[in-house]
Amino acid sequence: MDMRKRIEQALERQLAPAPHHGAPPKLLQAMRHAVFPGGARIRPQLCLAVAQACACDAPGLALGGAVGVELLHCASLVHDDMPCFDDADTRRGRPSVQRQYGEPLALLTGDALIVLAFEVLTGPDVNHAERALAMQRTLAQAAGSPAGVVAGQAWECETEVDLSQYQRAKTGALFVAATTLGAQAAGATPEPWQALGEQLGEAYQVADDIRDVVGDAAELGKPVGQDQAHDRPNAMQTLGLSGALKRFESLMQDAVAAVPACPQQSAMRELVRHEALRLVPQLSIAWRHPNPRATA
Amino acid sequence: MDMRKRIEQALERQLAPAPHHGAPPKLLQAMRHAVFPGGARIRPQLCLAVAQACACDAPGLALGGAVGVELLHCASLVHDDMPCFDDADTRRGRPSVQRQYGEPLALLTGDALIVLAFEVLTGPDVNHAERALAMQRTLAQAAGSPAGVVAGQAWECETEVDLSQYQRAKTGALFVAATTLGAQAAGATPEPWQALGEQLGEAYQVADDIRDVVGDAAELGKPVGQDQAHDRPNAMQTLGLSGALKRFESLMQDAVAAVPACPQQSAMRELVRHEALRLVPQLSIAWRHPNPRATA
Repeated sequence: MDMRKRIEQALERQLAPAPHHGAPPKLLQAMRHAVFPGGARIRPQLCLAVAQACACDAPGLALGGAVGVELLHCASLVHDDMPCFDDADTRRGRPSVQRQYGEPLALLTGDALIVLAFEVLTGPDVNHAERALAMQRTLAQAAGSPAGVVAGQAWECETEVDLSQYQRAKTGALFVAATTLGAQAAGATPEPWQALGEQLGEAYQVADDIRDVVGDAAELGKPVGQDQAHDRPNAMQTLGLSGALKRFESLMQDAVAAVPACPQQSAMRELVRHEALRLVPQLSIAWRHPNPRATA
Repeated sequence: MDMRKRIEQALERQLAPAPHHGAPPKLLQAMRHAVFPGGARIRPQLCLAVAQACACDAPGLALGGAVGVELLHCASLVHDDMPCFDDADTRRGRPSVQRQYGEPLALLTGDALIVLAFEVLTGPDVNHAERALAMQRTLAQAAGSPAGVVAGQAWECETEVDLSQYQRAKTGALFVAATTLGAQAAGATPEPWQALGEQLGEAYQVADDIRDVVGDAAELGKPVGQDQAHDRPNAMQTLGLSGALKRFESLMQDAVAAVPACPQQSAMRELVRHEALRLVPQLSIAWRHPNPRATA
């Protein structure tokens, strides 16, 4: 079965009615709204790809890590869209959770998805308790303080911010978690895989910053112009458009080079190149046809 | 060292500057504001008491469970106080996190404390990976969907609510988690300890409902009259004052009876009785001198 399908099915199992029997109906609906249909599912695919590259002997554990990292990502989007942050009306081309279900349920949906991310790897069918516990630690460090997603978001509440530190936490942490979890599921040493996660995370953030200025809201499925509207530090502000595009290309090259020696190194490098191509065309098109705000 | 002091020191270690080095300064301040000074720390004490009653051979694990359950409790208070729920100005006699640090940081503080609750038991010094993983599952089930704190809070967003189901999730879940975690840390079978957690949880909720009507805001350190103001289902509404007091007494008797056979059964029963006495005097005083709202 292809990777993307395995991820969708695993997410579906976690958010099916059966395991949530007795839950408040709207909470489960809102949780599903936050997770389905998903975006590119890039983090869980990265986790599974690394596990595969490491010849993982525990596919259930790798899938659990993939689901965990995606649930944390979905939770962060729900809370980012709240009125006290982006106050976003749309996400993935549909109403955001806060718009569809209201602020109280959006707050609780994010909370419930964070918790679920930590429940996935505790199932009674987990055979490698030590690996699973190490993976729980990876998820927690990628999500919390001092250097996870929540800490990244909290830098927006400070007056002095280091752009690189902010982005490493807000976006990079879950990419590093994805590669780390894949290696940990396989019982491999995770450290050599961190640089790949770091490069991809930074590249993805730069691409996101560019799209926020030159992208089209309908095509992206979410509002654009958010960084400027919320005065958030971003690569477009510091590097300009051509500088940001150069930075993106350089980071993707570094990512390819960062794939460590492993049983399937060349396949893994190909996957990274493929991901770069998936992002670059959008950027090139946007570059040639910038929307009015981009030149304003 | 006495139990309460061990809990404070363990919480302090989790929220000390060192493990949060590099975190956004306000986030860590807000997290500490949410945890220190604490309330009665009843859930972590219950966890340690059960571990002790089961002759626990892994005190670090029991303390980790105690800290985890208290952090989840603190997180739930921070999110409950948010403008979209209680919009509370005070908590434990001080400004609530949302009042002191603003809504964005309050949202993130709750998130960060939930995550930290799941990080505590993954430390490199944890020697019993299987026990720790089972405890992580207990924490997740007590916090999330379908029957944890978040689900309990989400019942407030539904039009039809079963009072008992609502309270079991919103308040009971962390009490059941506390007794379960204590037993799991000791490697004991947790099921016999669940009834004690359930009775104590329900008793505590009834006491809280009564205090919300007849209590004094200054003495409680938080606003009163919240259930009525937010039209929340509560025991005062369904049972009246004398019915609610009778229900509390009956639940505490059931709790004492629910202590299962264990190495230190009589000490454990004494502790439960002590907890009942700690809560009852306040109630009796309130009963004799109800504030105007109680009779309105």
